[in-house]
Formats: sequence, C-alpha cells, structure tokens
Amino acid sequence: MDPYPKPLRDLIDALKRLPGIGEKTATRLALFILADKGNLPEELSAVLKTVREQIRLCPVCYNLTDRVRCAVCSNPYRDRSQICVVEEPSDVLALESANAYRGLYHVLHGLISPLGGVGPDDIRLAELMERIRQPGVSEVIVATNPSVEGEGTFHYIAKMIQDAGLNVVVSRIASGVPMGGELKYMDQVTLASALRYRRGVREM
Amino acid sequence: MDPYPKPLRDLIDALKRLPGIGEKTATRLALFILADKGNLPEELSAVLKTVREQIRLCPVCYNLTDRVRCAVCSNPYRDRSQICVVEEPSDVLALESANAYRGLYHVLHGLISPLGGVGPDDIRLAELMERIRQPGVSEVIVATNPSVEGEGTFHYIAKMIQDAGLNVVVSRIASGVPMGGELKYMDQVTLASALRYRRGVREM
Repeated sequence: MDPYPKPLRDLIDALKRLPGIGEKTATRLALFILADKGNLPEELSAVLKTVREQIRLCPVCYNLTDRVRCAVCSNPYRDRSQICVVEEPSDVLALESANAYRGLYHVLHGLISPLGGVGPDDIRLAELMERIRQPGVSEVIVATNPSVEGEGTFHYIAKMIQDAGLNVVVSRIASGVPMGGELKYMDQVTLASALRYRRGVREM
Repeated sequence: MDPYPKPLRDLIDALKRLPGIGEKTATRLALFILADKGNLPEELSAVLKTVREQIRLCPVCYNLTDRVRCAVCSNPYRDRSQICVVEEPSDVLALESANAYRGLYHVLHGLISPLGGVGPDDIRLAELMERIRQPGVSEVIVATNPSVEGEGTFHYIAKMIQDAGLNVVVSRIASGVPMGGELKYMDQVTLASALRYRRGVREM
C-alpha cells in the first residue's frame, strides 16, 4: 500500500518529471513545500500557471521574451552588425551573464543532428539566413557547443553563407582549456584544440 | 540588466526557495518546464494548489492524510498495542516503505532542542502521553534520529512514561553500522554504539 495520501503522491509524481529529480528528491521537495510556513505552494502554483501564458519567442531572434521583442533586440545600444548564433535560450542567458558581448543573438532551437533525425529545416536556419541578408550585418559568430552536432551546425552555417555569396565574416567561439581548469583533467580533444588554436604573444 | 523575462525570473526565484536548489538548477528546471511539450507546468501548478488544501494532520497520530484519519490509523489490521514515535511525517513514509512494522505511529513534528529553542511543549508530547494513557498500549518504540536531539527526546519520553507510573515498555530503535555499510567509513560514535549494543549469537 502506498503510504502517501493521494494529493501528496500527485505532487511527488509531478516533481519527478523534472530533470535530475527522482523519487527521493521529489519526496523531500514535496514535504518541504507542504511544511512551508509561508506562501510557497501558492506562489509556485501561480508562477507556473503564468509562465507559459506570458513567455513567447522574440520574432526577430527567437529568444524568450514577455514583450513584443526580446530585451536584447529592443535595446537601442546593441551592435546590430553582429549576430551570435546559439542553440538554446539558456545559451543567451549564459553569454549575457558573461557581460562580454554587445551584439544581437539568433536562437536556433536545436542543432543539426543526422543521428537524432534533426535536419537543417527543423531548426531556425532559414530565419537566420533571412536576417543575414538584411543590410548592416557584418559578422556571424557561431557559439554552438563544441560537440559533434555543434561543430556540424557551425560548418553548415559557414557553407550556407559562403554559398549565398554574402559579404559576412563567419567566426567560431574559441575552444580550449577553460579558465581555472587543469590540464591533467582535460580530455584529449580539448587539449588538441587548445594546442591547435594557440595564440602568439602578439595576439594577447 | 537581468537577461530573463520577468515571468521566467519569477519562476526561477520561486524554485530557488526549494531546499538544495540554487540559481543554476532553478534556471535549468524553469527552462525545462517552459519547453515541456506536454502539460507539465499546468499539472504542477494544479497539484501545488490542491496539496495544501487537501492534506491535513491525522487527529490521532499527526501523520499527513487527506481523509478524516490517516491510512495507518484507519487500517483495522494494524496492531494497536504498539506506538512508534517519530520526528516527521517523512519518517513514517520511510518506515512504511521498509514494510517491517505493523503497529501505529505518533509524529512529534519536531524534537526537543534546548539550543534551537524547542521545548517539550512545542512538539506533540502531551498528545502522545494522552494516547499512552488509553488502555491497550503496551509498547512505545522511539524511532527518532540517532542525533543529540533525537537521543534527548528519547530520554525525555522514557522518563515521562516512567514518572507517570504507566505499565508500558519503552524501547529505542537499534543504532549501528547500516546494512551494506563499511566499517572503515563509519564515524566513531556509530562504531562505539555498534560495539556496545552487540548481540549474542542466541539473540540472532
């Protein structure tokens, strides 16, 4: 017999659908929520209800927004000549928190993956090409993850722009040993990349 | 500038109030919930809304229930002569999943903690004494955690029952090396307890 009252069991089952949360963590979270002295369950319930109603995709860059255009696209101080291409909205958030980029973004919502059955038409590549064809774009920085799919998508984008004969620089984010990382813990591909793309002292 | 649209930021902030969930995990969970193809946000919102409306404390043992009495207290096959005293509802769930106990429970909702400012009157001890005074109770098994507060509460309960002159056996759950555990990783207090409460071959 399940020792949990049904409403508690329902909450545990719903929490278990979240990534990385199993039976034990879900139970711990559910009991914490239930025992909260404040308004935690009501507040969580309310924000969960509104999040999908209010969040949509920016029609320009396909980043998440609750306005007509996203915060980056509608910011007049952003450099409109650069477009940084990423896989997911969370990549935009990560790059923005680094505070090192002042251009615009383009969120593909996926990567080309022949094994995963994702082709070029399944992600926002046509929309990217349409943006690049507009006057004023001078550089496309491909910031997909350094994975097989990320590299493949980068090469596809580079070839697509080259074939279209557009006068746009295509660049790729640097790949190497992360700051604070230790060489002895790095994989071979990362070390090979760090060596291959080494910088001369003059480039520092 | 916060790169998150407000409804998403609200969801992240609400998730961060859960134990063991920081900014990064909350962001990951929020983006997963938002990207869900099914009804995850709506379902989570609904169960969160109902859980506190429907879950209450059993008036007999103070375990969680959505009925008049909890599933254990209302089960006619449980042994009414034994009362197992625990700190929290999650302890009942843990013991029930072990499927090794057929008696009733009593949930204290806390432990006596002089340093934490929790006295005997702040937990359900008066209610426990009232139950023990009823005819038919022959054993009280104190299953609080083997911590300073858990041991202190056990001794308080034992003395309370002794002082009342009740003909009730008070016992304490065994403390020692857990099944599958390794001696070399055990702390000194656990090893001392495992040695002190060793069983003779005849008790096996």
